[in-house]
Amino acid sequence: MPRNLKLTLAYDGSPFHGWQVQPGLPTIQGLLSAAIGRITCEKVVPQGSGRTDAGVHALAQTASFSTESTIPTENLIKALNSHLPPEIRVLHVEEVVPGFHARHSVTAKTYRYRILRAPICSPFLVRLVCHHPYPLDEIAMLRAAAALVGEHDFTSFAAVDPERAREGEPLDNVRTIFSSSCTRQDDELIYEVRGNGFLHHMVRNIVGTLLLVGKGTLTPDDIPALLAAKNRSANPGATAPASGLYLVSVEY
Amino acid sequence: MPRNLKLTLAYDGSPFHGWQVQPGLPTIQGLLSAAIGRITCEKVVPQGSGRTDAGVHALAQTASFSTESTIPTENLIKALNSHLPPEIRVLHVEEVVPGFHARHSVTAKTYRYRILRAPICSPFLVRLVCHHPYPLDEIAMLRAAAALVGEHDFTSFAAVDPERAREGEPLDNVRTIFSSSCTRQDDELIYEVRGNGFLHHMVRNIVGTLLLVGKGTLTPDDIPALLAAKNRSANPGATAPASGLYLVSVEY
Repeated sequence: MPRNLKLTLAYDGSPFHGWQVQPGLPTIQGLLSAAIGRITCEKVVPQGSGRTDAGVHALAQTASFSTESTIPTENLIKALNSHLPPEIRVLHVEEVVPGFHARHSVTAKTYRYRILRAPICSPFLVRLVCHHPYPLDEIAMLRAAAALVGEHDFTSFAAVDPERAREGEPLDNVRTIFSSSCTRQDDELIYEVRGNGFLHHMVRNIVGTLLLVGKGTLTPDDIPALLAAKNRSANPGATAPASGLYLVSVEY
Repeated sequence: MPRNLKLTLAYDGSPFHGWQVQPGLPTIQGLLSAAIGRITCEKVVPQGSGRTDAGVHALAQTASFSTESTIPTENLIKALNSHLPPEIRVLHVEEVVPGFHARHSVTAKTYRYRILRAPICSPFLVRLVCHHPYPLDEIAMLRAAAALVGEHDFTSFAAVDPERAREGEPLDNVRTIFSSSCTRQDDELIYEVRGNGFLHHMVRNIVGTLLLVGKGTLTPDDIPALLAAKNRSANPGATAPASGLYLVSVEY
């Protein structure tokens, strides 16, 4: 009887071409699959809680796979980390029930976006934040962020995603946002959002829209109309850079 | 009459081949020289407070150069940063007296070395710390660090440095250490040292020796004999990795 394993991983997304396996390119899923293969001699493609784009980071991404290997989970953490580049670390491995699937079983996910407000971007934060040293009305951004809470159709905040139908995910764009808030932490404006699911580029498009609110191009009162339009073209917000985005946690 | 300018810079040392100009290789001094050249149309090699090795970081390195340019210092910061890679940032520019020299005028320098004690090294710290998850007697290390305070001949902690005679620096290896201490900050053991000057590899060799004390190979009481030997071969401490080392500040 194979064991079903759940991995928790952190990664610095900068050196990789995103989560999903791509032939000939370094991706987190691809490198993880290769590391599992070298340890178990099985051909396994671990399923992530969702794809992260190139340059997006994870503090606790989750993945699951099934294996005949009987290696104890503590040893598996060490073995996987010794076969992975240092920018990807397996933090935790646990055996889960056979029905568990890292994507299908998700109940909530939390993302964080770091906007650095300092005049000069520290050399140590280059690939870890989005640097925005220009004036922003942060109170207006906080109000706009709060206007996204609840169950909405997020088509106006979603990239067209050709992969989604293929993967068998629901095709409607309705998602529930449990919390959506901006906070100041020293020189950084941090946007954090928790919801039952996120569409492709959704968090980065939300941040792009919040930045327009911060600049005064949009107001918090424009958010309901943007949602109601159910049309990405109705939303002038750009897709914010990948470097500031972190998958913080996945709940089951 | 040319102006004498003092720059303060921060850099992530990982992508560079150290401070000093080397033909065909990216170095901080070389990139800074090129940026100054593009802005002022002058051929200038800025003098640093000292060289940092490949992979060593700086929170506030200083450099000085003389220029006929009359660009206001605030504009110079912006212009230099727009011509430098994002891993090097000019934090401050000020006009100083003609006799000021970033190396010759130094009265004290402070270095910091970060030893990460967590079992797993965060993907975001790979090039920013030295990862040592194995047992260390941190109290013994603190005592050994304190034994270095004062005026000593540091030959036992210095790499042989063929450049030094050429640069006209004093050839004796006597330096005064004003403070030398280890502190715990969450998962990190931080060694910080302030002195009137440092020999080549001196801080990394001190840390290598402190790690042997932490492991029990040496004791704090061995430090005076190591100093008295005035011989690098008498000191079994290895040169600790560059990734953990930061030039914190330079005093004049």
